[in-house]
Amino acid sequence: MRLGLDVGGTKTDAVAVGEADEILARVRTATGWGPDAVVDTVVQAVHSLLSEGRFTLEKVASIGIGIPGQVDAATGRVTHAVNLGVAELDLAGAVRRALGAEVRVENDVKAAAVGAARALGAVETTAFLNLGTGIAAGVVTDRGLWRGARGAAGEIGHLSVDPAGPTCRCGQSGCIEALAGGGAVAQRWGRPGALPIRDIFDAADAGNSDARELRVGIARGVAAAVRVLVLTADVETVVLGGGISALGERLRGDVVAELERSAAASAFLSSLDLAARVQLLAPGVPAAALGAAIIGAAPMEEREVLTHG
Amino acid sequence: MRLGLDVGGTKTDAVAVGEADEILARVRTATGWGPDAVVDTVVQAVHSLLSEGRFTLEKVASIGIGIPGQVDAATGRVTHAVNLGVAELDLAGAVRRALGAEVRVENDVKAAAVGAARALGAVETTAFLNLGTGIAAGVVTDRGLWRGARGAAGEIGHLSVDPAGPTCRCGQSGCIEALAGGGAVAQRWGRPGALPIRDIFDAADAGNSDARELRVGIARGVAAAVRVLVLTADVETVVLGGGISALGERLRGDVVAELERSAAASAFLSSLDLAARVQLLAPGVPAAALGAAIIGAAPMEEREVLTHG
Repeated sequence: MRLGLDVGGTKTDAVAVGEADEILARVRTATGWGPDAVVDTVVQAVHSLLSEGRFTLEKVASIGIGIPGQVDAATGRVTHAVNLGVAELDLAGAVRRALGAEVRVENDVKAAAVGAARALGAVETTAFLNLGTGIAAGVVTDRGLWRGARGAAGEIGHLSVDPAGPTCRCGQSGCIEALAGGGAVAQRWGRPGALPIRDIFDAADAGNSDARELRVGIARGVAAAVRVLVLTADVETVVLGGGISALGERLRGDVVAELERSAAASAFLSSLDLAARVQLLAPGVPAAALGAAIIGAAPMEEREVLTHG
Repeated sequence: MRLGLDVGGTKTDAVAVGEADEILARVRTATGWGPDAVVDTVVQAVHSLLSEGRFTLEKVASIGIGIPGQVDAATGRVTHAVNLGVAELDLAGAVRRALGAEVRVENDVKAAAVGAARALGAVETTAFLNLGTGIAAGVVTDRGLWRGARGAAGEIGHLSVDPAGPTCRCGQSGCIEALAGGGAVAQRWGRPGALPIRDIFDAADAGNSDARELRVGIARGVAAAVRVLVLTADVETVVLGGGISALGERLRGDVVAELERSAAASAFLSSLDLAARVQLLAPGVPAAALGAAIIGAAPMEEREVLTHG
């Protein structure tokens, strides 16, 4: 049995999976703040999973952990996990010492890409587009996760698609993330509310012109990300995930309409069948936790591929 | 001994390579027009190589062919090779019948990517950015050529980076190719000359404002292509090739300056060290022919990777 954990800014999602990656048990816990609390969160979540599924630690073949921030997958060291109060942490080492199990760590978006591809039963190259506070993507091929040379693979949120567009926190103008990132859009909306992007969609439906403009920008940004992923990596499928994807068909419909608009203007884009490649992550699928479990169990040979992309 | 051919719109470049991919012989011939003439060009180039290097056909282990247009690498069929007057052609089959040798066919930019990576001795993920009449890229990893799901990988020339930019032949506005493609730029320059892009660089140096604007657009377009390749695939190196790269340091200097300008505005871009990743293809390196020879000799297992990669 393999365990997979998705350590998020507020909650940690943990699953135990069987031989066919079927989910045997799942628990959710609050995530602690700071290096020690994050390690403790992982250890406690593992123990909760064991009691939830009535397993013993001896039955655990491997533990995979997905976490936001920069991850050195070869060593399991985490840096700049700002949302967790972690500047630097040897997460794999600390969890290995605490539980005596095989541990691997990966960036949460990359883990979610592996989990989403598996949940889809994808055989072709698949991208997971994380639409949260920020925007990033993960690409999975039949050879495993695409990592690239220095771990910057999938950072497409900071590609500028409009020099006249809104300023991005990264310093550029018209970045995909400045157009469609939840943080940037909520900041421009500037009104209180627990679900600002949903509020914007509702207000746009109600005729609010500011909301309409922001909503159009989200569709433009996400559509641009889809074009980047297909025209660069030629992924067969782009799976929309992350908090904003909870808007479901309302979001996908906007994105598909934007892709169809651009395809109508370009026979080349039309030939790529972009709109048909966009899918929503099925609600309730623990993509990052499932992906972490799969990465944690990757055999040595595959790890070579995972490491070298 | 393996043979590699780069069938171009006007000339065909052919090399014979040894065990260490060292070039044993090289010949250049004019390319014929139409399916039969293209097959004949390949067959004649092979015979010229044999006499040039004093080899016999029995010594040839494999023949690889790079050609512009859409290529089904699995079957060796070529479609839409417009510059060669070829609508559809079973190139691998025809050459196999004529010479009785093992033949593989690949798109010329993808073949050049494989050859450029080998010429560089690259161990990390490498992109070849072809700057010709049009713009496209090929990406090579330690697992082989990146092909993607439907063969659209590397078509980054048709990513729009400025909605207010020049109209592209593909129907979009502000495509990388509309900004920096030799065909689009020469058309906007609109003055006669065998080497319009070189003329534009010279006229810009001489203070011509139209030329300066076009030259800035080329740098912006190429820099955008570099950002797309690094932020999506995280390639360690972007090798500039194709006709426009004959401008050498004059071109690379413009592109590096544009990348440094954007890095100065963005700590994130600065951390990616983009300018240092840009290299020129060494003059005289037969990248596409060398890459074709390597692809033609790819063992079965690697072909799997090449096909699904």
